Amino acid sequence: MPIVVQKYGGSSVADPSRIKAVADRVEAARRAGNDVVVVVSAMGKTTDELISLAADISANPPPREMDMLLTAGERISMALLAMALEVRDIPAVSYTGSQAGILTDSAHGGAKIKEITGHRVRDSLAEGKVVIVAGFQGVDPDSKEVTTLGRGGSDATAVALAASLGADACEIYTDVDGVFTADPRIVTEARKLAEISFDEMLEMSASGAGVLMSRSVEFGRRFHIPIHVRSSMNDQEGTWVKETTMEQAIISGIAHDRSEAKVSVNRLPDRPGVAASVFTPLAEADVNVDMIVQNVSHDGTTDISFTVPRAQVSEAERIAKEVAAQVGAESVDVDLGVGKVSLVGAGMKSHPGIAAKAFSALAASDINIEMISTSTIRISCVVRSEHVERAVQALHDAFDPPMIVEEVGA
Amino acid sequence: MPIVVQKYGGSSVADPSRIKAVADRVEAARRAGNDVVVVVSAMGKTTDELISLAADISANPPPREMDMLLTAGERISMALLAMALEVRDIPAVSYTGSQAGILTDSAHGGAKIKEITGHRVRDSLAEGKVVIVAGFQGVDPDSKEVTTLGRGGSDATAVALAASLGADACEIYTDVDGVFTADPRIVTEARKLAEISFDEMLEMSASGAGVLMSRSVEFGRRFHIPIHVRSSMNDQEGTWVKETTMEQAIISGIAHDRSEAKVSVNRLPDRPGVAASVFTPLAEADVNVDMIVQNVSHDGTTDISFTVPRAQVSEAERIAKEVAAQVGAESVDVDLGVGKVSLVGAGMKSHPGIAAKAFSALAASDINIEMISTSTIRISCVVRSEHVERAVQALHDAFDPPMIVEEVGA
Repeated sequence: MPIVVQKYGGSSVADPSRIKAVADRVEAARRAGNDVVVVVSAMGKTTDELISLAADISANPPPREMDMLLTAGERISMALLAMALEVRDIPAVSYTGSQAGILTDSAHGGAKIKEITGHRVRDSLAEGKVVIVAGFQGVDPDSKEVTTLGRGGSDATAVALAASLGADACEIYTDVDGVFTADPRIVTEARKLAEISFDEMLEMSASGAGVLMSRSVEFGRRFHIPIHVRSSMNDQEGTWVKETTMEQAIISGIAHDRSEAKVSVNRLPDRPGVAASVFTPLAEADVNVDMIVQNVSHDGTTDISFTVPRAQVSEAERIAKEVAAQVGAESVDVDLGVGKVSLVGAGMKSHPGIAAKAFSALAASDINIEMISTSTIRISCVVRSEHVERAVQALHDAFDPPMIVEEVGA
Repeated sequence: MPIVVQKYGGSSVADPSRIKAVADRVEAARRAGNDVVVVVSAMGKTTDELISLAADISANPPPREMDMLLTAGERISMALLAMALEVRDIPAVSYTGSQAGILTDSAHGGAKIKEITGHRVRDSLAEGKVVIVAGFQGVDPDSKEVTTLGRGGSDATAVALAASLGADACEIYTDVDGVFTADPRIVTEARKLAEISFDEMLEMSASGAGVLMSRSVEFGRRFHIPIHVRSSMNDQEGTWVKETTMEQAIISGIAHDRSEAKVSVNRLPDRPGVAASVFTPLAEADVNVDMIVQNVSHDGTTDISFTVPRAQVSEAERIAKEVAAQVGAESVDVDLGVGKVSLVGAGMKSHPGIAAKAFSALAASDINIEMISTSTIRISCVVRSEHVERAVQALHDAFDPPMIVEEVGA
């Protein structure tokens, strides 16, 4: 029988009635002739509540105990879903990450999946059961300690399980209808994409599209598992994230991100090694640098700007100031008022002029561009935070994604 | 170093501030030169809340999944306590029942502890850590399924762990100051007992004293582990439950129980085997029969009355009616309006006249006795439910427990 792996996020299992709705959907997949493996997150805000309890007790809780605490969340939702299936006379069994053989490294709070053994999962499927697996968690086989996978961990569990079980696809159920050409809360004309390539989805995720974390997309790409992102609230098809798409879009969508800040190191001496002197200590401190721009030097000095997650901006500022003092730079500025707008499309690499058209569209809307960074299939611009929505709308108007190759005339 | 096992119930870990108070107490035990093992229940009403979530989903949830669900509770409290200890720079580690090697049989929801391996507990103690163990839970080593121990399970975990680790004693922290001569909510003069024997405590627990479940007392008696029942709200000494007590009390205390109902089978043919015909099917249906009274036969018939937990009364009535029809009894009555009052004391076996004095005290308070049952160290009377409080007070007045042997003059 074909195996389907379905993943339901916290909002899809937020209360008993939602859990029953998930059970209905699992029943339908089973009726359609599939073996079904379900990966669940913790119910609703459970994880946040547990984090807040821990914060009441310790400003810096030991990561090992934090993982012990947080893994209680999926344990609750998975057992309740098993009960809801048994009520429908569907044999079901729930397994923790450890029981399902999700083997990880030892990095508590952000462990990486190394291997999935999955003996119990396969045995239970062979017995005709629906298998429910706790998302977000695993076990370090050396220390036998329970680990969690960090942000986006449940999606990663689902895609990795789908790969290890030889499933045809992984369905990610969420509270939106799929991947859109832009955030529908900003652009009312935004359209749901029927499909998008792994490469494009990776760029969208990295550029702020929250619907899928990069991590699970990388798993899908590496193990050739198509991912179907769809809503748990209706029966519509969502968006298929897959190897290649039928029609290659020049522009698939526009993503935006307001979670970063900009740090500028001004008037650095313009000599070899100066960029390394800035970014080596940042990397050593695990500061997650995103965009980097170094402008042309005029007077023997140069300016380097980069963006980092806001949560890391004080750390980044501290390090940048140390470096500035060491190498004789003039000053360090921090700017929390920035946002990033990105245009993503696999077809843009064979279509010159996309960047120019994007910059013109932003200019026509009186939006100043502060930083630019590009990959072969993405163009990102840093603008004022308050201009982000207008920028997304302007780019959507200009390109009307998904903008298919065949349609390009001008 | 001496090992102390401490157990904290749900009310003692109900919120972060209570958990911090537990950490203070653990710190003190460690400062006093002990290796400390802590057994915790789920926080406050967590278990009830999880049961209620399950009830919203299924009228009859699979016991295996119910255990998966409920074991999330202790996981939360144990991780939070470990965090609270680390804040005090006390190295600590939390283990689930499975990780601690609490091996049980396969009876989900009411598993029995078969063995405690406890390798990780011992290793962590050897590393100088406080070890926190989830109460109420274990693992069936054959199926590798997680189990729960049922009512009183956390106390049983603590006493069994104390036995397996060779601890000097097991401290059970609760929300009352110890074991009292009667319920202080009924008898204002009720006194806290400094000590009580295992045998007496077993009779008290079986007679309705809720402070300790029979199960953990049996463990203590079997493995010679003194149990110190005390309050987590203050530093007073509580009650020591132990092998033999220094002064043997004639009457240690008065327990009461309003959780049972009485079933009477009237005018049974008085012939050999008639009692067996009633109680064999009840035993086969797992109905938990407590007191049994068969009165004298006058006219070739006899009446048999027995008490059962109210939760099982419909089942008991159904079976009794079947038996009555088979053997030709006249009728079956069910009485929900009963209560039981018990006088417990190891010294009563060598002091005749206790029963007579008790019956007189009840008579003087105009309380009619409906059933009587005695063991060597207990006298129990079934009375009208509304007379229970008066009966407890009357017996306490008459015997003024703890009534020590030396004081007995009259």
